[in-house]
Amino acid sequence: MPLANLPFLDESEPFLDESETAVIDPDSVQRIIDSLDQAHVPRGFKFGSTTAKIKPSGKPDLCLVVADRPVTAAGIYTQNQIVAAPVVICRDLTPMNDFRAVVTCSGNANACTGQRGMDDAKRMADVTASAVGCDRTQVLVMSTGIIGHPLPMEKIEPSIESVAANLSADHAALLGVAEAIRTTDQFSKLAHRTVELTGGPVRIFATAKGAGMIEPNMATMLSMVLTDAPLDAATAQAILKRAADQSLNRISVDGHTSTNDTLLLLASGEGPSLSGDDADKFCAALADALIELGKMIVADGEGAKHYMDLSIRGATDDAAAEKMARSIAASPLVKTAITGGDPNWGRIVSAAGYAGVELNAATTSLTIFDVVIYRDGVPQDFDAKSLSRRMKATQQIDLELTVGTGPGNTRFWASDLTKAYVDFNSEYTT
Amino acid sequence: MPLANLPFLDESEPFLDESETAVIDPDSVQRIIDSLDQAHVPRGFKFGSTTAKIKPSGKPDLCLVVADRPVTAAGIYTQNQIVAAPVVICRDLTPMNDFRAVVTCSGNANACTGQRGMDDAKRMADVTASAVGCDRTQVLVMSTGIIGHPLPMEKIEPSIESVAANLSADHAALLGVAEAIRTTDQFSKLAHRTVELTGGPVRIFATAKGAGMIEPNMATMLSMVLTDAPLDAATAQAILKRAADQSLNRISVDGHTSTNDTLLLLASGEGPSLSGDDADKFCAALADALIELGKMIVADGEGAKHYMDLSIRGATDDAAAEKMARSIAASPLVKTAITGGDPNWGRIVSAAGYAGVELNAATTSLTIFDVVIYRDGVPQDFDAKSLSRRMKATQQIDLELTVGTGPGNTRFWASDLTKAYVDFNSEYTT
Repeated sequence: MPLANLPFLDESEPFLDESETAVIDPDSVQRIIDSLDQAHVPRGFKFGSTTAKIKPSGKPDLCLVVADRPVTAAGIYTQNQIVAAPVVICRDLTPMNDFRAVVTCSGNANACTGQRGMDDAKRMADVTASAVGCDRTQVLVMSTGIIGHPLPMEKIEPSIESVAANLSADHAALLGVAEAIRTTDQFSKLAHRTVELTGGPVRIFATAKGAGMIEPNMATMLSMVLTDAPLDAATAQAILKRAADQSLNRISVDGHTSTNDTLLLLASGEGPSLSGDDADKFCAALADALIELGKMIVADGEGAKHYMDLSIRGATDDAAAEKMARSIAASPLVKTAITGGDPNWGRIVSAAGYAGVELNAATTSLTIFDVVIYRDGVPQDFDAKSLSRRMKATQQIDLELTVGTGPGNTRFWASDLTKAYVDFNSEYTT
Repeated sequence: MPLANLPFLDESEPFLDESETAVIDPDSVQRIIDSLDQAHVPRGFKFGSTTAKIKPSGKPDLCLVVADRPVTAAGIYTQNQIVAAPVVICRDLTPMNDFRAVVTCSGNANACTGQRGMDDAKRMADVTASAVGCDRTQVLVMSTGIIGHPLPMEKIEPSIESVAANLSADHAALLGVAEAIRTTDQFSKLAHRTVELTGGPVRIFATAKGAGMIEPNMATMLSMVLTDAPLDAATAQAILKRAADQSLNRISVDGHTSTNDTLLLLASGEGPSLSGDDADKFCAALADALIELGKMIVADGEGAKHYMDLSIRGATDDAAAEKMARSIAASPLVKTAITGGDPNWGRIVSAAGYAGVELNAATTSLTIFDVVIYRDGVPQDFDAKSLSRRMKATQQIDLELTVGTGPGNTRFWASDLTKAYVDFNSEYTT
């Protein structure tokens, strides 16, 4: 399974262009959710979820994904040095070839909870292991929600047991998992692909929770990918890293890398063996699904009305392009311009200018949608009112910034910044 | 004039502590403005300002500071790679020993204006030079305001001439300068010090405009320091750099480094010669004044209700401490917690955790005012309601984060993030 020349990672190939994933808006999200039927569910897993009453809202907040037999799991994690207890557990165990179950709770992140937090996370693994009949070291744990509060174990333990007693391979049960990992998300986030490989189809299902504290530097806050493709642990890890670097590691809601970011890839191996360039095809399909998921996360960023679909071209290298993209995506002045439908090239160009990488002002150009508003360092005449109307009416704002003639390109997706974000986050209490 | 061992730069000395500058609130700002009398005005300069009608508001927007004879000037500038035309002019000329005048306009930044912008900035220098009787290369130029629009030279040229014809050394004329450089600032920003040196007193007067697009990486958007101390150009440059690195380079409103950041030090030499440790004393007084000015800028950040006075202690070195401070100061989640009076240590600690520098969670502690809310990695019991009330009632929120036992410390000042900021910046039009 050669990974060195995956098509979408080949420097000589054009980067994934915008036609490859859908614009995300409420309609398209609903279509994606509605399109998940049993044929799309990766074989070899069972699912369950419940309301453990961790969340005051009484919405589902605990779920299990259980593999029928020991299978492959890979994971990538936050680069924050303050990490939640469940991240410590997962980081120690993955990549692994004897995975059996992952237990997830939402509403409480089990972060900054000291030794008690570690004990609680291990206890979640223990209870899950007993309930599904495996060893604690075959169980992964994820948590998301408020930081610094101990888990309500008296609610969590019996809930794990009741969920484990009612697992199902049905697609409705899988949708329940996508539902149960939500915190302030307004909608469930999922993407699915069926990839035709040499020996037949393999299925990919990906889900995530997003909303706030989102600038993954490994993965989004919590995300799980299930597939029935047969992958060994090392290959699964390599594929996951490469796909994430082009997708979930290129999104930002508020620039704040969380303590709990976790992205898991669970591969049951029920599908046909891979041969030829199947691993490449699989990785490309995975990246594509994770881009769709990433766009859902920024579209549903806390308070977000719009999101930027940002292309940087002509940088000295891809890393420089990515630095400029992160700088633009994090600037409150750029974000509020997007909120206001303001084609304010000055804020965008100057945010690239302080990213700390080379930018040639004389060959810098900016396009919003298909309108060139700044070309080779000179503001252009354009119909600002018409462009502003279009920006206000559209959820996805396409920005293309060319900063020179170098080979470095990137894509990045980021939320805008609204009064609703400020409201929500100045009223959320510790 | 040995600069190597300036007291406030000595690693073995405690860093400037909070007692050294006043908390900034509307009352203290007014007291500072009211306290400027003729005795505090540096000798050897004349001042003038007017309404050139660059600003639609009709408020003062053009000013001159003119030295009686050729004197020393130093300058430090934005690190943005997109720089406004006036920055190019100043950067080329400073440090210099034949400075005669600086002309400043507000309401238009003359940034991203191409060759026409350079021609206009040079023309401002030419007109000023003719009016005050010197060479163009003795004139510095500053502009601040909207980006990407050509200057209204037909308004600016006659205004420079009329201001030059009515210069005065009066303190009221100097207050006029502080007024004329404002853009969206709600109040004039100034600080003054009279430093008793071996041969007698020297005076320092500093003013700045702030408000938005503020995270100087050299200086705040526009700032001028006047002194009658005798400094050669190289010494003035070194003192200015050192003082700014401890003050105006440690502030952030919105993390967006502008295209126009300029900090000038103009030294007339009318005061007594320096000897002994006078240069050290002068530099310490200058840093102190610039910290006061920096606190005024963050207190008056666009939409700001509160500002953080942030101390980081125990980092591996000062640079690591500064990275954590910038990360905390830029986090929208931290900023909105400050807005809401929420003692949300989880957001603050995790923002330090993703700064990309070493942090030992087990020896990390956080104090807000004098309340320890997180100690050695463990949340503490504290009266959250009482602390929140105090945070809401106070403009300056003192945060002290200890991240280990290393020798690295820093101080940093930053605005909060309010709905008013979002309002203002989503409605400002290109």
